[in-house]
Amino acid sequence: MMSLPKLIITDIDGVWTDGGMYYDQAGNEWKKFNTSDSAGVLFCKKLNIPVCILTGENTEIVKRRAEKLSIDYVFQGVQDKLKTATELCKQLSISLQDTAYIGDDIGDYKLLKAVGISAAPANAPNYIKEITHFVTNKKGGDGAFREFVEHILEKNNLFSAILDSL
Amino acid sequence: MMSLPKLIITDIDGVWTDGGMYYDQAGNEWKKFNTSDSAGVLFCKKLNIPVCILTGENTEIVKRRAEKLSIDYVFQGVQDKLKTATELCKQLSISLQDTAYIGDDIGDYKLLKAVGISAAPANAPNYIKEITHFVTNKKGGDGAFREFVEHILEKNNLFSAILDSL
Amino acid sequence: MMSLPKLIITDIDGVWTDGGMYYDQAGNEWKKFNTSDSAGVLFCKKLNIPVCILTGENTEIVKRRAEKLSIDYVFQGVQDKLKTATELCKQLSISLQDTAYIGDDIGDYKLLKAVGISAAPANAPNYIKEITHFVTNKKGGDGAFREFVEHILEKNNLFSAILDSL
Amino acid sequence: MMSLPKLIITDIDGVWTDGGMYYDQAGNEWKKFNTSDSAGVLFCKKLNIPVCILTGENTEIVKRRAEKLSIDYVFQGVQDKLKTATELCKQLSISLQDTAYIGDDIGDYKLLKAVGISAAPANAPNYIKEITHFVTNKKGGDGAFREFVEHILEKNNLFSAILDSL
Repeated sequence: MMSLPKLIITDIDGVWTDGGMYYDQAGNEWKKFNTSDSAGVLFCKKLNIPVCILTGENTEIVKRRAEKLSIDYVFQGVQDKLKTATELCKQLSISLQDTAYIGDDIGDYKLLKAVGISAAPANAPNYIKEITHFVTNKKGGDGAFREFVEHILEKNNLFSAILDSL
Repeated sequence: MMSLPKLIITDIDGVWTDGGMYYDQAGNEWKKFNTSDSAGVLFCKKLNIPVCILTGENTEIVKRRAEKLSIDYVFQGVQDKLKTATELCKQLSISLQDTAYIGDDIGDYKLLKAVGISAAPANAPNYIKEITHFVTNKKGGDGAFREFVEHILEKNNLFSAILDSL
Repeated sequence: MMSLPKLIITDIDGVWTDGGMYYDQAGNEWKKFNTSDSAGVLFCKKLNIPVCILTGENTEIVKRRAEKLSIDYVFQGVQDKLKTATELCKQLSISLQDTAYIGDDIGDYKLLKAVGISAAPANAPNYIKEITHFVTNKKGGDGAFREFVEHILEKNNLFSAILDSL
Repeated sequence: MMSLPKLIITDIDGVWTDGGMYYDQAGNEWKKFNTSDSAGVLFCKKLNIPVCILTGENTEIVKRRAEKLSIDYVFQGVQDKLKTATELCKQLSISLQDTAYIGDDIGDYKLLKAVGISAAPANAPNYIKEITHFVTNKKGGDGAFREFVEHILEKNNLFSAILDSL
């Protein structure tokens, strides 16, 4: 049986979104999140598992979404995701094997290989999906993060209890 | 035969929308409604069945959409949907069994179990769809609310008459 | 063989769009058009068939899109589409049987029944699709209008010539 | 074996996007790009193959996206794509046969016929897809450009090396 991770790390673009980057004429930018993923965050809170956002982009958009959902750790503008995750693990006195990570692209490759439980959304490139432990049925932006969290809870026989507690 | 409800209650995010929450860089937010659901509201008006919006979020977005469609009752920022619906029923001197409700997620669970006719959109989690009387073929944001209303009217042999009256 | 219409009339929401109505927090509103439909307008121009927009909504959004594509006639905020189309036909000294119309919902019903060539997008309600001459393979917002124009040109053996002329 | 192009040219609307053109009430406009295509640009940079954007529209939206991804050549408001591409080739002392092009519509027809390697997204019209060397599995806006670049690299047995170098 998969053990319960001590930290769940997540990419944003392509995981919490479908990769869409909306640009307007005036210099503003949009991302489309899915409220379905909020329940994934809620499940982690119920189990006292901290959630960490790790993204190469650096936007107010993600800052606001993270605040709305009270995400524990937020790292934006990250060049080397493996390095940042390693440093956070050190700070938390846990190992990368104690963490779960969901990402969808080449910038996620090394971290996906290093964590204890890895996942990619259904529409990630094959060469990413091939190296992850789990591939969600949902596409990025359709609740892939939530599905990953539910998968972890189910494998630990915790999901029914969580649902009953709500 | 299913009896005609005296009130139709609806969740918003994931039902009137696909769950999408659009954020920009400047603090603004968007939802995408579907004009297809407007006809569902129109059918209710033709039959003098009031429509009630019940949502955990609290936005100007929903306020404006409700005004555009002249929705009878609008409750936003609701923590306990069962409680709010129960209070409204008391005020209207009807029972929860007289109401219909469509919702898609864990915050809707208790109310879905309490109403006379319950529904969830096609893309709701299985553990929500399992407890509802009806699952729409449409996904949230694709006209799931309208389909639910049409389903109720069809089961009461009223839909053809409504269409003819338009 | 279907004769070439003297006017092509089109609904907007659900035909040129997927029915989506984007609302923000500040009172602004969005529609998503598809550049694919621009070619449909271009084909009509090549054949000197005027295009008419007929919509129940009344927005700057549609006004701007119509100007961008140099649409010949634009009627917004229309309560009775059959009446408005009848008046335009009178003004143009043509009959409704000389016109083509694509619409997707109950407000389009009467006009769809009255024109010479009618169509609905793939995702229109069944009770609309049942009364039209043609149902596009494309959904609203995915190029349904263009497909309708191409269908008309093909049935008149004009499409290859139009493509060659570009 | 397909030889490696010396320049990769790409259309925007319908290739980097799903053709969607978002209009608001106030005169602003949006396009939705996909971060997945960014990797396609990155792969070209790794191989020192310049990328050129060629589009009939003329927006700040595309200007900003091109700057974000450091695109080598950007031509907007182009009436005759074959002419503009021919002139650029002359300037670069290469031939059109040395270039690759992905486009999706009638305005791309002549250039698609002239280049060494041509492609169209899965949802382009049949009469466009019929004349291209390659049709991507992805639709426009879902990573079609990236898939085209990966296809070219695979046919030149360069893709594994590129992935390993990241």
